[in-house]
Amino acid sequence: MKPPAHEETTTELSLNQATTRPYPLIATAEAAMRAGIRHIGLWIEPVEEIGIARTQRLLADTGLSVSSVCRAGFLADKDGAELRAAIDSVKRALDLSHAVGSPMLTLIAGGLPARDRSIRHAEQRLRTALEELEPHARQAGVRLALEPLHPLFVDGRSIVTTIAQALRVIKDLPADTVGILIDAYATYWDSNFHDDILDAGPRIAGYQVSDFALPLPGPENMNGRLFPGDGSIDLASLTSSVRRAGYTGPVEVEIFNDDIWSLPLETIIERTVASFNRYLTEPVNAMERQLV
Amino acid sequence: MKPPAHEETTTELSLNQATTRPYPLIATAEAAMRAGIRHIGLWIEPVEEIGIARTQRLLADTGLSVSSVCRAGFLADKDGAELRAAIDSVKRALDLSHAVGSPMLTLIAGGLPARDRSIRHAEQRLRTALEELEPHARQAGVRLALEPLHPLFVDGRSIVTTIAQALRVIKDLPADTVGILIDAYATYWDSNFHDDILDAGPRIAGYQVSDFALPLPGPENMNGRLFPGDGSIDLASLTSSVRRAGYTGPVEVEIFNDDIWSLPLETIIERTVASFNRYLTEPVNAMERQLV
Repeated sequence: MKPPAHEETTTELSLNQATTRPYPLIATAEAAMRAGIRHIGLWIEPVEEIGIARTQRLLADTGLSVSSVCRAGFLADKDGAELRAAIDSVKRALDLSHAVGSPMLTLIAGGLPARDRSIRHAEQRLRTALEELEPHARQAGVRLALEPLHPLFVDGRSIVTTIAQALRVIKDLPADTVGILIDAYATYWDSNFHDDILDAGPRIAGYQVSDFALPLPGPENMNGRLFPGDGSIDLASLTSSVRRAGYTGPVEVEIFNDDIWSLPLETIIERTVASFNRYLTEPVNAMERQLV
Repeated sequence: MKPPAHEETTTELSLNQATTRPYPLIATAEAAMRAGIRHIGLWIEPVEEIGIARTQRLLADTGLSVSSVCRAGFLADKDGAELRAAIDSVKRALDLSHAVGSPMLTLIAGGLPARDRSIRHAEQRLRTALEELEPHARQAGVRLALEPLHPLFVDGRSIVTTIAQALRVIKDLPADTVGILIDAYATYWDSNFHDDILDAGPRIAGYQVSDFALPLPGPENMNGRLFPGDGSIDLASLTSSVRRAGYTGPVEVEIFNDDIWSLPLETIIERTVASFNRYLTEPVNAMERQLV
C-alpha cells in the first residue's frame, strides 16, 4: 500500500494534519486525495478519535501514505513517575505509528523544569529516555525523529533548538531507529544549517516546511506560521541542502495559523498545493531565484 | 573620573538607558545617581540630543561611568553606497563613544537582504566591514562589541544569533579592539552557552541582562523583556559562567517593555536595583539556588 518513501526522485508534498487542524481526519484525507496529494502527516489525537481500524481503512480508500505521526515526547523536563508515564506514552505512540504505517514518530524533547534550568542536564535526561525507547522503536519498526524547535520555545517545549544539538543528543544510537526531523521554520535562522544538515545525512527522518514573519501572534507565539513563500525563509536553498544530504522522502507542509485555520478545508488544501508547487518544486524555484 | 571597569571584584549594576527609554538622559542619569548606581549604558540618540559637551558635564556631575554606547551597525544587509553610509555612521558612533568615555560600542550585525538570503554571505559582508572599522576603533580607543541577537530577529536585525557565530565572524581580529557583547535574553536558550562563553574569554566586552517569558507582545515582538527574576532565564548560572570566563566589568540591565516604560522613572530604577540585587549579586543568588 505504502510507496517506498525513500526511493522517490521527485519532491512530493505531504499534508501535515496540523495545517487543517480544525477539520476531522476523514474529511481532510478525502479532500487531500481529491487534490492529488499522496502523503499525509497524521496527529495522534485525531487518529485516536476515529480509531486505528477506521484510520487504516481511510488510508486504503484514499491511497494516502503516512509520512509521519506527530507527536510524542516532552521527556526532558520530567523525572520519576511523571517520566515513566511520558515514556509509556511514547511507546503507545510508536505502536500507533506502526499500526498506521508511519515510518517515523516525531519526538519533541520537552522543556526546562523550574527545579533545574541546565540544558545539558535536560539533554542527559532526554538521552537516557531515548536509550530506553530505542528497542521499542526497533520492535515497532518506527523511527524516533527528534525535532529541534525554535529557540523561542526552549522553556516550555523543547530544549533541543538546533540540528547540531539534536545530532549530539542521539549520537551513537542506531541510525535506523533514531533520527531527526528538520522543520524549516524552527531552524532556518541557524548559520550552521547547511553544514549541519550534511552532517545529519542519513539521520534525516523527515522534513517539514512553512514560512516565517514577524510579528508572531499570541497566545504563546505558536501560530504565526505561513504558507511557503509568504515569509522570509529561503525554502529553495534549505530544501536543496536537505536533498543534497540524501533525504528523498516527501516534504510535509505543517502550518499553525489561526487565520489559515478559519478558511474552508478545500481552500487551505488548495493554497497548500499551490504554494508547494511554486516554492518547493526545485527546478521552478531554482530558476525563479537564479540559484542554478 | 571613570573607575577601571575591568578590575572590579564585585558585580556592579549598570543602568542601560533602554530600560528608562521614555525619560530624558539628564533626568535618568540624575535619578540613577540618587539610587546609588555607578554605571550607565548610553544610547546614541539621547546623547546627540543634548550634545557631547552636556553629556560629559552630566557624567562628571553624577559620577557615572559609561559601560557601553548602544548601538551602531546594521551592516550585513547592505552594499554599495548604503554600506558606505552605514560604515561612516559606525565611525561617528565610535568617535561619540570615545568622547563620552565608553570602553565599547555595541555593534548589531544587520539582517538578511531580500536579494541574498545566505547567512554565510552576510557574515562575509559583515567581516569585511569590521576589518575596515577596526583601525578606526583602535584610533578611537573604543572596542567594537558584536552582539548576537535572538534568532527571532535574524531577518531584520541580526544575522548573528549565537556566541560561537559571533566569535567566528571576528576570529583573528585584534581582541583589544573587537569583542562581543553577551545579552542573556538573546542567548540563554543556546545549549552551548556555557562552553562558548569560556571560549570567548577576553573577547567579552560587555554583559547585559533582562528576563524572558512568552508570549512576546507585538509589534515585532521586541518589547517583551522583563526585570531579572520575572522570567525563566537562570541568570545566576549564566552570570557565573560570564565571570568564570574572566569578565569583571559592570552588568547592564537592558529592558525593552512598554508596560515598564509606562512607570515613573524612579519606580523603574528602584525595581531595576531591587531585581539586580536579588538575582545578580552572586553570593545571595547562589545560596538561594543552592548552586554552591
